[in-house]
Formats: sequence, C-alpha cells, structure tokens
Amino acid sequence: MTGIIYGIGVGPGDPELLTVKAARLIAAADLIAYPAPETGDSFARTIAAPYLTAGRPELAIRMNIGDGQFPKDDIYTGAAEELIRAAQAGKTVVVLCEGDPFFYGSFMYLYARMAGRCRVEVVPGVSSLMACAVASRGALAARNDVLTIIPGPLPEEQLRENLASAEAAAIIKVGRHFPKIRRVLRELGLEANTRYVERATLDNQKVMKLNELSEDAVPYFSMLLMHRRGDAWS
Amino acid sequence: MTGIIYGIGVGPGDPELLTVKAARLIAAADLIAYPAPETGDSFARTIAAPYLTAGRPELAIRMNIGDGQFPKDDIYTGAAEELIRAAQAGKTVVVLCEGDPFFYGSFMYLYARMAGRCRVEVVPGVSSLMACAVASRGALAARNDVLTIIPGPLPEEQLRENLASAEAAAIIKVGRHFPKIRRVLRELGLEANTRYVERATLDNQKVMKLNELSEDAVPYFSMLLMHRRGDAWS
Repeated sequence: MTGIIYGIGVGPGDPELLTVKAARLIAAADLIAYPAPETGDSFARTIAAPYLTAGRPELAIRMNIGDGQFPKDDIYTGAAEELIRAAQAGKTVVVLCEGDPFFYGSFMYLYARMAGRCRVEVVPGVSSLMACAVASRGALAARNDVLTIIPGPLPEEQLRENLASAEAAAIIKVGRHFPKIRRVLRELGLEANTRYVERATLDNQKVMKLNELSEDAVPYFSMLLMHRRGDAWS
Repeated sequence: MTGIIYGIGVGPGDPELLTVKAARLIAAADLIAYPAPETGDSFARTIAAPYLTAGRPELAIRMNIGDGQFPKDDIYTGAAEELIRAAQAGKTVVVLCEGDPFFYGSFMYLYARMAGRCRVEVVPGVSSLMACAVASRGALAARNDVLTIIPGPLPEEQLRENLASAEAAAIIKVGRHFPKIRRVLRELGLEANTRYVERATLDNQKVMKLNELSEDAVPYFSMLLMHRRGDAWS
C-alpha cells in the first residue's frame, strides 16, 4: 500500500489562482476525481483543466450539490471506497475541491471516511471568502473586528440574530435564499453596508452594492459581505 | 501613467502555496515591496523568495508588526507615496502580503491610500485560516454552521461573550494573549473541543489538542480552532 489521496483546493474560479503545489500534484496524478452535478460539467474540473495531463483516468462523483441540499451519505461512502481501492493499488489520487477543501467543502465528508484507511493529504486553496472580498475591493475585517461567516440557508430568525450583533459578516450559500437574506439586512438597516459578489474571479464576475441590485434571483455562486463601518479600513 | 501596483497574497508560509498568478507577477515585477519588522527579515519576502528575480529593486516597509500592536499612520502614508511614485513612473510594483491581503491584512491600509490615485489590483492568497484547518486535519465548519473569527487581543469579557454562543470559531492573533484565551475556553468547557496550530505549513509546524498543550507562551503565528461538536463533520 504505497498510494496516496490528495484533497486539493483549486480556488474560486480563475485557473491562475490554483497554488503551485496544486498544479504540480494535479499534473502528476494517476487518477483525478471531482464532485459534479447530477448532469453536466464539474466546476472544480473546469478550474483545474489547464493543469490536467491528457489521457489520465477521471472519476466524476455525481451528487445533488448546491443551494442548501446535502448529498446522501451513500454517495460519499461509495466514492470513498473507490478512491481507497485506487490508493491501495498504489495510485496517486487527486480529489479536486472548489475553493478550499475544509471551509464548508464537501471533501470533508470523503476525508472522514478515508483518513486512517490510507494516506490522505489535504492542500489548502484560495477560498471564495477571500476572493469575494478582493473582487469587491473591500477588506473582510480589520484590527480586532469579529468576523462572522453565516450560511444563507439558516432560518430567518437565526439570520437576524447573527446579523444584528455582527461587526463584519460574510453570508455564504446565498442562491435561492437571497430574498430572505435581503429582507433581514434591510430590516436591520444594513443593506447600504453590504456588497454583493457573484462568480468572483471569473470573466462574468459581478460586484455591486446590495442596495443597487434590483434582481431577486441570484446564482448559487454568490456572496454578501457586510461591514458595520461600511469599509473595514474606516 | 502606465504603471500598476499589485497587492499579492503569498499564502501561509510554504512557498508552494503561492498561486500561479502570484508567482508570475512576482517574477515580472520592477519593484518588490513587503512589510518587515523594525529589525530582521520579512516573513512575506521569505515565503516569496523562490519566485524573486535576482537584482530587482526591493523596498522593505518597516513597522512594529505583530501581537496586537498597530503601526502608525505615517508609515502607511509614507510607503503609499513611495509606491505611487514608482507606479506613476511606469513601474510594475508588487507588494507581498502574508496570507491573504484583505483578511485582517495590513495591506488594506496601503490600499485605502493608493486606490483612486493609480491602478491597484489585489490577488487573493491562501489564508492561514484555511491552512490551520488543514494542518489540524479538521474542517472549520460544515453545512449550516456559523463560523466566528475572533481576534485574541479582545478583552476577556468580549472573548467570553463571542465564544459562549459560537458553534465554530477560529481565534486569530493569539500570541501573548494565549493565557487569557485558554482561561475563557476552559471556563466555557470548550478546551477539549479546541485545536492549537502553530506555524502552519512550515517545517516546524506544531499541531495539538489544546488540552494537551502545556506551554503558556506561544508565538504570534498561532491559531486556535474550536468546534462545538468536536469535529465539523460529526
């Protein structure tokens, strides 16, 4: 048993935001695995495409990803068994992860099933959290600010409770929860202090102040960044 | 005026955790600037060293960094003026930033002084937040957990208030505030749920459960990661 499994963060979208280490490991892998929707392309694979070696075997782990749904346990269990078998056969396996693997990433559920049964290493990546801050040209937090990361699917009352006391906040997994989140921010008088970022670092990136956004339907890959001072550096 | 200033995240410490974009821009820069302590080497420069082109001019921005102190405004103002002059003379300037530039990074104070006066672009980097989670082999947060980032220099009462209600927390800027932070975690019964990470991704990285750490003096580059469930994936 000489194989190894790497969980690798491929960053927020721009292929140049992969790390040097990620690029090296992806190019050398015997098997490339990645999460993918039930039909269609894998975003993680698209990001890593420039670094893939042609002809290497690939494994798409198809699951109902996005928008507050969580895949069934047996999808992770089945994929973990297949990856472990490859590692036990001596292969170097790379699992591509959008953003960073351990920041709300689904890779953690694979990791929990594989660690201890074969060598598993994780390579951190540029998170969408940092990429969205940069895209919006505003820092997440400064000095001794407390920064709260809040998932958008939370019930309205919990969103309100967390945002009411937050100095700085990033609301992730916005998608179809956007109208509810905007309502809470508006009620708390925080709409003008919030920036909206969609598809950070991609060609079709969109950034605006929340109170200038007219749409009520936003994509899953969007984030809201709030700072009570307006700007972290003020 | 054709020059440009790039603020570039160089990641947590391992030079291979720079992004492909960072490596490319650093190698091509006309002037490399970086924060540095009042005496001694710049950590950001050490991380980026393998990508520097020999003989290029460098500017060390010397300041009292670390451990809850904040540099004086005139250090940022002076450095910003010098960088703007270089950009106005047509130079491509790179400012190296530990971790990510806009996650509690001091680059934001330079950015606020330079943006609008010349072209400034920011390149996100792998943050120590994600690197510490990976080093500790535990995810920061899962599913709909709220994750709170808490600076260690906060007064004890504010630490207690934030940690008492936190589902998952990362305590940053630990350093000389460690005894106070440990006391609060112990009082709240959270010590066994907390991992200690020092110098993540460097050769002398140290990771342990907080209740197995006997020292009371820890370095500035350390972090505490707490999860109320013990592990995010539980």
